[in-house]
Amino acid sequence: MTGPRYPALIKSLPSTVPFVGPEVQERQRGAPFRARLGANENIFGPSPFAVAAMQDEAADIWKYADPTHHELMAALAAHMGCGPGHIVIGEGIDTLLGYTVRLLVEPGDAVVTSDGAYPTFNFHVAGYGGVLHKVPFKDDKEDLEALMAKAAEVDAKLVYLSNPDNPMGTWHSGAAIKDALELLPEGTLLVLDEAYIEFAPHGTAPQIAADDPRVVRFRTFSKAYGMAGARVAYAVGARDLITAYDKIRNHFAMNRLAQTGALAALQDSEWLEQVLRLVEDAKQEITRIAGDCGLRTLPSATNFVAINCGRDGDFARSVLAALIADGVFVRMPFVAPQDRCIRVSAGRPEDLKILAEALPKALASAKSG
Amino acid sequence: MTGPRYPALIKSLPSTVPFVGPEVQERQRGAPFRARLGANENIFGPSPFAVAAMQDEAADIWKYADPTHHELMAALAAHMGCGPGHIVIGEGIDTLLGYTVRLLVEPGDAVVTSDGAYPTFNFHVAGYGGVLHKVPFKDDKEDLEALMAKAAEVDAKLVYLSNPDNPMGTWHSGAAIKDALELLPEGTLLVLDEAYIEFAPHGTAPQIAADDPRVVRFRTFSKAYGMAGARVAYAVGARDLITAYDKIRNHFAMNRLAQTGALAALQDSEWLEQVLRLVEDAKQEITRIAGDCGLRTLPSATNFVAINCGRDGDFARSVLAALIADGVFVRMPFVAPQDRCIRVSAGRPEDLKILAEALPKALASAKSG
Repeated sequence: MTGPRYPALIKSLPSTVPFVGPEVQERQRGAPFRARLGANENIFGPSPFAVAAMQDEAADIWKYADPTHHELMAALAAHMGCGPGHIVIGEGIDTLLGYTVRLLVEPGDAVVTSDGAYPTFNFHVAGYGGVLHKVPFKDDKEDLEALMAKAAEVDAKLVYLSNPDNPMGTWHSGAAIKDALELLPEGTLLVLDEAYIEFAPHGTAPQIAADDPRVVRFRTFSKAYGMAGARVAYAVGARDLITAYDKIRNHFAMNRLAQTGALAALQDSEWLEQVLRLVEDAKQEITRIAGDCGLRTLPSATNFVAINCGRDGDFARSVLAALIADGVFVRMPFVAPQDRCIRVSAGRPEDLKILAEALPKALASAKSG
Repeated sequence: MTGPRYPALIKSLPSTVPFVGPEVQERQRGAPFRARLGANENIFGPSPFAVAAMQDEAADIWKYADPTHHELMAALAAHMGCGPGHIVIGEGIDTLLGYTVRLLVEPGDAVVTSDGAYPTFNFHVAGYGGVLHKVPFKDDKEDLEALMAKAAEVDAKLVYLSNPDNPMGTWHSGAAIKDALELLPEGTLLVLDEAYIEFAPHGTAPQIAADDPRVVRFRTFSKAYGMAGARVAYAVGARDLITAYDKIRNHFAMNRLAQTGALAALQDSEWLEQVLRLVEDAKQEITRIAGDCGLRTLPSATNFVAINCGRDGDFARSVLAALIADGVFVRMPFVAPQDRCIRVSAGRPEDLKILAEALPKALASAKSG
């Protein structure tokens, strides 16, 4: 009995699992984390109306969700100021990024991103046989000019940009993005990941017409709306592109409670405003805690703060390891020189109290280690 | 400004949306359905413990779900009598079928299925450029010998078999499946869709070792467990194959409430037994209702019944259209001669009362039309 016959591309993919969740780390260390501040989840949670909507809908889970997302789609179209023909809704930005790569990247096609930017995008590009070209960050920001120049140089099918960016929390103005768009080569699609846009200053989202064929932008309910576990996101783009997603997407893949909850969350702008204030307070508190340890933080337009540990990547990795061992779940950038930082998500006062107690100890441990 | 550059395969895919949900039909007819009996949903719903578990977890939706599905995985491994290394959990069988096709089918590769079998599988095969070869049903059952012979003839990468089958509700014994497996060509993987297996007589699931490299089998929480809107399913197969899914799956794509609810549902075998009895009663009632109209039904090992409308496909389509117009959501097979039937999902007494009232009228309308 032989097994199935895998294509060369599949055989070439690494069989290691690329992403480790905090639950795996908790099992490894044999204890739950005391503070969950590593995945940029929104610990302040979703609107109580979203929670209630999901609870009310729970007994109806025997029904498939509407594959056209009719009500949520109408609300999102109004929210984004475009027609529903410009929006595709999917099970998180990860899924929509995967669809985008599948729609455009054939084996050998060039794709451009920043070195150290979102690894799940890279995972999809590799998974479909695309060839990744990476440009370095510049002053801890994604380098717009370098991304566009590289895209032209390698004739990229896609160029990925997160704004605000993960893992540093930095951002470009919408005007700068619009200017960069003029440098985008013909036939290259800008994949603009706006997962954190609600946390950013006014003017960070570029004014781009929904029918601009050069850009597809991604928004999510995972961050500001506090629904990472629901898996609801959407992409906005030109009608032709949005139609193409329908050719390949899993039409019935949305969880029914997620669909209902997202609609309720979108309608509760008061809760969103409150969350944004709480996140702002938390970011100031993280900066204060870092400052008390003699460390500086980067300005952030997201719900997390990059703390510069003041030395090299090995030192920051030691700080991170000490925090993890002490029950504080945080993460850090993969690539130098950004890896001099650790990345801490906004938490409640009780979470940040644990950080305030653990960070000096972790620094001392790293210095002595 | 030009748009993005699509590969030839993507350009070749139809831009029509292949699957119409009942909500779309409701909006088209301007009124909700009076009875929802068309999508083989389990109207008796999930275990109350599953509902409660999802409600209790709703406020924690800000957390991503555990990407390893640790607790659910352990419970499923115990349930299936295999190690967790033999199971991959995904967002519905549709998603897992898509992954399976992606793992094995390159453009031009041959895939075999039955003419009129599950269209979503065909959608994925087309979407990855596979070439579908279809064999006809035989006596309203998927034809095991013909499927295996065709697989050998075309050197298929995959052969799809649903047991019990959709849309007819017929089935083969596990022993017959095992015998057919001996005819499976080397290098062909049997995609065994057991979505309805819990409804089937004892012995319908073949005894196949989890590490048999010739087969991957699919199970779901959408049917007997009453959680179609949750999107939780799993595949069981050899360790190498299961590892391969990890190379491409969206690791963080599971809804957190779905994960929690599925675990609770799996643990409530009492509820499952009760649902199976209610479904059995409903199927008998559908047979009685059809009989009162002078129609025969096919024996069914699923939660639906195929009613033979007694004439050709055009006649059955007229009956179906009349039922839809009268507010009864049902569906029917696509392909002759199976399309002499309409397909009715098991419903509660109040749903079937509406069917009992609507079916004679629909038949009269079709006869006069």
